[in-house]
Amino acid sequence: MRIALAQLDYHIGNFEMNTKKIIDKITLAKSKKSDIIVFSELSICGYPPRDFLEFKDFIERCTQSIEEIAAHCEGIAAIVGGPSINPKREGKDLYNSAYFLADKSIKKTIHKTLLPTYDVFDEYRYFEPNTVFECIEYKDEKIALTICEDLWNINENPLYTTCPMDELIKQEPTMMINIAASPFDYKHIEERKKALRDNAEKYQIPLFYVNHVGAQTELIFDGGSVAFNGKAELVNELKYFEEDFKVVDTDDFEEPVLDFGFNSIELIHDALVLGISEYFSKLGFKKAILGMSGGIDSAIVLALAVEALGKENVRSVMLPSKYSSEGSVNDSLLMIKNTESPYDIIPIEDIVNSVESTLKPQFEGTTPDIAEENIQARSRGLLLMAISNKFGYILLNTTNKSEAAVGYGTLYGDMCGGLAVLGDVYKTQIYELAKYINRNEEIIPLNIIQKAPSAELRPGQKDSDSLPDYSILDKVLYEYIENRQGPNELVAMGFDSALVQRILKMVNTNEYKRHQTPPILRVSPKAFGSGRRLPIVGKYLS
Amino acid sequence: MRIALAQLDYHIGNFEMNTKKIIDKITLAKSKKSDIIVFSELSICGYPPRDFLEFKDFIERCTQSIEEIAAHCEGIAAIVGGPSINPKREGKDLYNSAYFLADKSIKKTIHKTLLPTYDVFDEYRYFEPNTVFECIEYKDEKIALTICEDLWNINENPLYTTCPMDELIKQEPTMMINIAASPFDYKHIEERKKALRDNAEKYQIPLFYVNHVGAQTELIFDGGSVAFNGKAELVNELKYFEEDFKVVDTDDFEEPVLDFGFNSIELIHDALVLGISEYFSKLGFKKAILGMSGGIDSAIVLALAVEALGKENVRSVMLPSKYSSEGSVNDSLLMIKNTESPYDIIPIEDIVNSVESTLKPQFEGTTPDIAEENIQARSRGLLLMAISNKFGYILLNTTNKSEAAVGYGTLYGDMCGGLAVLGDVYKTQIYELAKYINRNEEIIPLNIIQKAPSAELRPGQKDSDSLPDYSILDKVLYEYIENRQGPNELVAMGFDSALVQRILKMVNTNEYKRHQTPPILRVSPKAFGSGRRLPIVGKYLS
Repeated sequence: MRIALAQLDYHIGNFEMNTKKIIDKITLAKSKKSDIIVFSELSICGYPPRDFLEFKDFIERCTQSIEEIAAHCEGIAAIVGGPSINPKREGKDLYNSAYFLADKSIKKTIHKTLLPTYDVFDEYRYFEPNTVFECIEYKDEKIALTICEDLWNINENPLYTTCPMDELIKQEPTMMINIAASPFDYKHIEERKKALRDNAEKYQIPLFYVNHVGAQTELIFDGGSVAFNGKAELVNELKYFEEDFKVVDTDDFEEPVLDFGFNSIELIHDALVLGISEYFSKLGFKKAILGMSGGIDSAIVLALAVEALGKENVRSVMLPSKYSSEGSVNDSLLMIKNTESPYDIIPIEDIVNSVESTLKPQFEGTTPDIAEENIQARSRGLLLMAISNKFGYILLNTTNKSEAAVGYGTLYGDMCGGLAVLGDVYKTQIYELAKYINRNEEIIPLNIIQKAPSAELRPGQKDSDSLPDYSILDKVLYEYIENRQGPNELVAMGFDSALVQRILKMVNTNEYKRHQTPPILRVSPKAFGSGRRLPIVGKYLS
Repeated sequence: MRIALAQLDYHIGNFEMNTKKIIDKITLAKSKKSDIIVFSELSICGYPPRDFLEFKDFIERCTQSIEEIAAHCEGIAAIVGGPSINPKREGKDLYNSAYFLADKSIKKTIHKTLLPTYDVFDEYRYFEPNTVFECIEYKDEKIALTICEDLWNINENPLYTTCPMDELIKQEPTMMINIAASPFDYKHIEERKKALRDNAEKYQIPLFYVNHVGAQTELIFDGGSVAFNGKAELVNELKYFEEDFKVVDTDDFEEPVLDFGFNSIELIHDALVLGISEYFSKLGFKKAILGMSGGIDSAIVLALAVEALGKENVRSVMLPSKYSSEGSVNDSLLMIKNTESPYDIIPIEDIVNSVESTLKPQFEGTTPDIAEENIQARSRGLLLMAISNKFGYILLNTTNKSEAAVGYGTLYGDMCGGLAVLGDVYKTQIYELAKYINRNEEIIPLNIIQKAPSAELRPGQKDSDSLPDYSILDKVLYEYIENRQGPNELVAMGFDSALVQRILKMVNTNEYKRHQTPPILRVSPKAFGSGRRLPIVGKYLS
């Protein structure tokens, strides 16, 4: 049997575009004599559709699109993901389904059993879990068709009480097909390949896996669809971070693919570039603006944005104050010269003076403190947003994950923006990213990489005045945020008790700031945003 | 049997406070010769603890607190809500449980079966559903103990495939006890009483229901715990929006309570006052600041904040520009005089001029538009935040639900703040609220109520220049947001098709703004915030 794997980029709710893409690929697959073509999970509406699923109108449009696609399935079968209505009077109204289309009609609708409801996933919010298991007979094959998470209940401590493949295997299928929308993080590619390989090894039949590719606001889908032969050997691996299409012949599998492993910094880089470009294209924007401080974070955002949007579409604005070092402007200028992108220099002195003189009666008798520092940061935010509004740019936020974690940033100041590019990248990873960006030539000036980080909001200020050294801070943050280690566990690992307490308190008392940040491109297993939900008024470790 | 109902306000993660409160009430109940005392759902850690549940340390502290409380249960039994560990190797790690404490130990742990995972609820994110049903025998009674949602599967189209009370009733219990954390909305009190009454009628045994009271950021818990006798008559109803305590004697039930129904505006008013006061007290703040525009929204926020925090703790700032009418400042001054609260008048002219002259090179050749309007709004935000930072106030946001829905507001300008007081109150409800606030005396000057709404960001500007009339807009928004009616359904209701399209597009394309708003006090069945999750890059009805 010839199986076409269609790894595509869908746009949530853009039924016209998604349907056309799917039909085009059915036509292509037919021309390549495929027996069946496989699309990813919820391909009809894009993943994740979130609460649009609560609209009858949205579901009707999904159904109409499925019917339109079915009409093109003559001489070929197609597996398309979409929501379907639960006909029973009990339980949630919908299933997360895989439609098996052939002979111009819907032949079978298979429902997802395991509904991920953790981290960024909310599937049980919308869907009833499947409880009936049935393979699909098609031509000479018997297909065990499952949806994403359905194959993940394979390890030690299972998250669910059912294992769909254990049920389906009783019917002696000849192959497994899994349609997925599995988002990227820098650890997930290896984990995913392992989970798929474990299934191929356990059930000893070929496995075809089609993943979504593209970015939907904070979630980045990396593609990497795969095929395993009946000996659990990886024989096909589709591209990462771009659309791809491949026809696999089960009578003539290709030779096993060599697995070189992945460089996580390269993956993060590619994911961020895709995340930026898709955020803009899906919102219908072309141009970005960002504030260039002379520091490494804004330099990296500039480099990534130039890759994603083109150098002519990224406008840097330097906003020096009386506390900005001369080096900051010069370093930024050199960086901008390296990227050949447009820029402005707009001193904020007059505005800061005017704010301070306006507030003189109120501030009488007080000494300068964080309020004055924030006035500078907010004056910058105000200017960047004014240019953004005037010319239709999206402002890119340059906050990194270490800063976002401890609240080292000014709400409505440097925390402004439409998209936080580095909000899931720790400061220590930022340096790795700079090295990677400079792998062929010096794009980010060495001086920017080498100088001590500073917000430059008061004379001689350094990040290290307020924060622990990043090399220690990031380790504690990683254990607390990614690995959910509590204070006792952190101390048992050898971190200083007072330091741990100080850091955890900073993280927890700044939840209110993160509540108002722009969406953050997710590249780690635990990003700030929809995957991490904490109370603002909580009183735990704070 | 004498049953004490303890309706308390817990603080998420504040184990010391929660444990002390519970032990104090056990002592009180003993002194009143109670046989058993009932506390609300997850009382040990506060509701909702969200991802704190993923920390082993957090769960251990819950267990320690339960043990500490158990030690006080001599001569009395107590039912306390808390997470418990799932001992099986399959499924989620935790249960949402009710601990039955007696004879200084944990006698039984009952788990929640129905896990709400919709709107603001994420329970399946953390908990495994219960599948075993067992009543508790205590003294001469057999208690069917359930947790919140467990009693809600009683209506027509059930959301779950199990009905816990249908299982428990087979064991012939003599009474039902339900512990809950059921958040307020202006429709929910009636629905909740009906659901509880339906249970009492169906199962024909007494029902004791204890709810959480207090606010946790956006969620407001209204209390209103109840007791029904064996004839399904409501015999006790505890207070709304405050802590309460009541001992009910099952051998001598009180006379049925007369049900006068509720005034939804009064409820919204009381909920908002509680929401403000709890946000401040739980974060350890006392003082609020807000911008007074001369419009009705800020006037109402001032009135509510004065009720919640005291007149001396709410500082109003008038920030007139050259477009502000003289009436705006005078109306605000009259309002401030009525509330006897402190104020400042800070003209923004100098700052706006300084921003515009700073941006002259960039803005050369353009005509004034929304960019210049936003500069005014952001200058105000900057000044309010500067005062907030300098003196440790929390800025109250005054955006209403109609504005939040259509994106009629400036990010980092009038959308700044620590808490959005009116973000779940439509403009047409705002007028009702003003009438209610003025029920005894004129606190909000009539002129503020009667004038046409305006942002005053350009000469003679009115909301009606950019928005449909609020009386129509709010109806469409209500049907779209609260009732999830799509475009065809709205047109079928009689709304103009072009208008519907325009409004839905405004709502959907402004998701990016709502992503960055302060937490919004929830008073409706569908508030912006954690209960409404939509994609930013979606392309549906936009």
